[in-house]
Amino acid sequence: MRSAALTSDAGHILRAVELARRAEGFTHPNPMVGCVLVRDGGVVSEGWHKGPGQDHAEAMALRLAAEKARGTTAYVTLEPCNHYGRTPPCSKALIEAGVAEVVYGLRDVNPEAEGGAAALRAAGIEARLTESREARSACAELVRPWVHSLRCHRPWVTAKVAMSLDGFTATEAGESKWITGKEARARGHDLRQRTGAIMVGSGTMLADDPSLDARPEGRKAAPSLKVVLDSQLRTPTDAKLLKSFGPALIIGHEGADPARADVLREAGAEVELLPGENNCPDLLAALRLLKKRDITDLMIEGGGTLLGAAFTAGIVDEVWAFIAPVILGGGRNAASGAPFQRLRDAYRLQCLTAEPVGQDILLRGLRQRKVP
Amino acid sequence: MRSAALTSDAGHILRAVELARRAEGFTHPNPMVGCVLVRDGGVVSEGWHKGPGQDHAEAMALRLAAEKARGTTAYVTLEPCNHYGRTPPCSKALIEAGVAEVVYGLRDVNPEAEGGAAALRAAGIEARLTESREARSACAELVRPWVHSLRCHRPWVTAKVAMSLDGFTATEAGESKWITGKEARARGHDLRQRTGAIMVGSGTMLADDPSLDARPEGRKAAPSLKVVLDSQLRTPTDAKLLKSFGPALIIGHEGADPARADVLREAGAEVELLPGENNCPDLLAALRLLKKRDITDLMIEGGGTLLGAAFTAGIVDEVWAFIAPVILGGGRNAASGAPFQRLRDAYRLQCLTAEPVGQDILLRGLRQRKVP
Repeated sequence: MRSAALTSDAGHILRAVELARRAEGFTHPNPMVGCVLVRDGGVVSEGWHKGPGQDHAEAMALRLAAEKARGTTAYVTLEPCNHYGRTPPCSKALIEAGVAEVVYGLRDVNPEAEGGAAALRAAGIEARLTESREARSACAELVRPWVHSLRCHRPWVTAKVAMSLDGFTATEAGESKWITGKEARARGHDLRQRTGAIMVGSGTMLADDPSLDARPEGRKAAPSLKVVLDSQLRTPTDAKLLKSFGPALIIGHEGADPARADVLREAGAEVELLPGENNCPDLLAALRLLKKRDITDLMIEGGGTLLGAAFTAGIVDEVWAFIAPVILGGGRNAASGAPFQRLRDAYRLQCLTAEPVGQDILLRGLRQRKVP
Repeated sequence: MRSAALTSDAGHILRAVELARRAEGFTHPNPMVGCVLVRDGGVVSEGWHKGPGQDHAEAMALRLAAEKARGTTAYVTLEPCNHYGRTPPCSKALIEAGVAEVVYGLRDVNPEAEGGAAALRAAGIEARLTESREARSACAELVRPWVHSLRCHRPWVTAKVAMSLDGFTATEAGESKWITGKEARARGHDLRQRTGAIMVGSGTMLADDPSLDARPEGRKAAPSLKVVLDSQLRTPTDAKLLKSFGPALIIGHEGADPARADVLREAGAEVELLPGENNCPDLLAALRLLKKRDITDLMIEGGGTLLGAAFTAGIVDEVWAFIAPVILGGGRNAASGAPFQRLRDAYRLQCLTAEPVGQDILLRGLRQRKVP
């Protein structure tokens, strides 16, 4: 019986994860959540959270099930919330609908919302974390950036690079269009669209004049915040990213010219000035600023100076590297500025995976967790 | 019938490929070849070529089948040879054994041995190239370095590197032990053992003092030729590679000190001096020298200067890059010296594949064929 319950838990919760992902990129600053109501092994209804102000996953599933919700088991990717936010608490809705049992894949870590399971139990409903490791792991991965942003008070940071097999993002002469193929670029745009904010350094902004907008095919995107880390506010007022889809934020150093900040604000940008050493805004302060704006995940697209500073500051949580089948023999490095001199000090990743994307290979890795 | 024949062709020839690979690393300068004798869909006997002077694959299969060979179909990875080398021609043996039909996966390209199919047909035996693309492609891949060495009069060259995710083979301070994990190093040793010769430059030789011997587990290795490209003959007489398993060859520039060459010869090395620009032996001349010594494939293990020169000279046929889950932010490049300034001039690979090896990822690519 135990193993049958495990299998059924895993199946229903993995389905809920699948449902949750339908809204990937649209739920910021909320987590993606999915829910399946089940009776006698059969699915009664399904729900997922589509974005701020809209039904939570449980509320959607309960609404669709209506009277049929009574006596079902609710499988949810995340412990039901217990607070009045933009919508009423899910624990209350599950109790009122007469659900018999609630199985969830991850304990809520949001201090404002936790306590859902306790509230359910107090109302006589069995509420438990699934014992399926596979299901728990899928639920943790689903909301990793969101959990990270709650725990660390800063967004989850993904460093994204496109480079030659020997590690160069551009030739010595500066040519970088295009090292990787169109499939990799499309994948990069898709990732952009799923991420709350995209950041480049002023060097990349001046060299490439990127629009930083997400151009995914077949998805209507919620606009990501376009961010330039631009110590001296060198961004020109006709920069493409000030005109393209979505809001733009320029983060400069507190010593930058305030008049220049006003000029950029008039051109449509938001400008924030932060303290920091060497006339550069402090990266951790920049992340805290983004978190205050409800950004739970950030993608840094380069260039090498910004990425080098990000690795040195220890803020990179995940790396996406598109590797092209080409050898350059020299050129610009993905991350530069302050190399690690000793292997034992190097920035280590774990769970490195490889996936073909067109003619290129996408390597992905997570920051190695410190073993205490 | 046609599709059934295709399926049966493919199955038997792929089995023959599997047999041939049992002797990988042992057949130099001969190709790997496998053979299966089949009657009414059932396997009568199997054979493979184990190395120079030993039975060819067909001879082994015929010997094992004895009288039962009569009336069978012989599936062979390579068109049977038609010449007296160290062993008598296989075409003759197949005719004498009364084989009914011969199906092969690749036409022989060796000018000394070709004509096997014609000889068989002249004796009234049907001999044909399989129509299965999958089988033909597997047979071509099996002997790609050997075919290349016959056609181009130089060995197939594989560049092997171990590097960080951002493309560095050592820290700026020169630390390189170990960027990749033990599984990757074991895989590298296995590749060494399957390759006829292994080359390093004098910089790597002086910095790392590598033994360059193959240390595969559970395989008794035929010794690979250890080669140092060492323009000025700086290799010390107590270098590890002069003492380790297998012969060592030092290739210097013709301007190097002949007395130094004699000292190295006394220390156990073979020394060859070649012409070349900038006091460096010409790489193509070095490859032709190796081909004259019956080397059909060569692995270049570095360092960056030699690999850079190899890419610039256009002699790299295949790349094996072990990528470690680590960011160094700077350090020594895999290939250096003469970067390609334009993307359109860059060294392009095709068929890039990725494979996890321990915590690392092995990326492999073949040199892109020029599209005329």
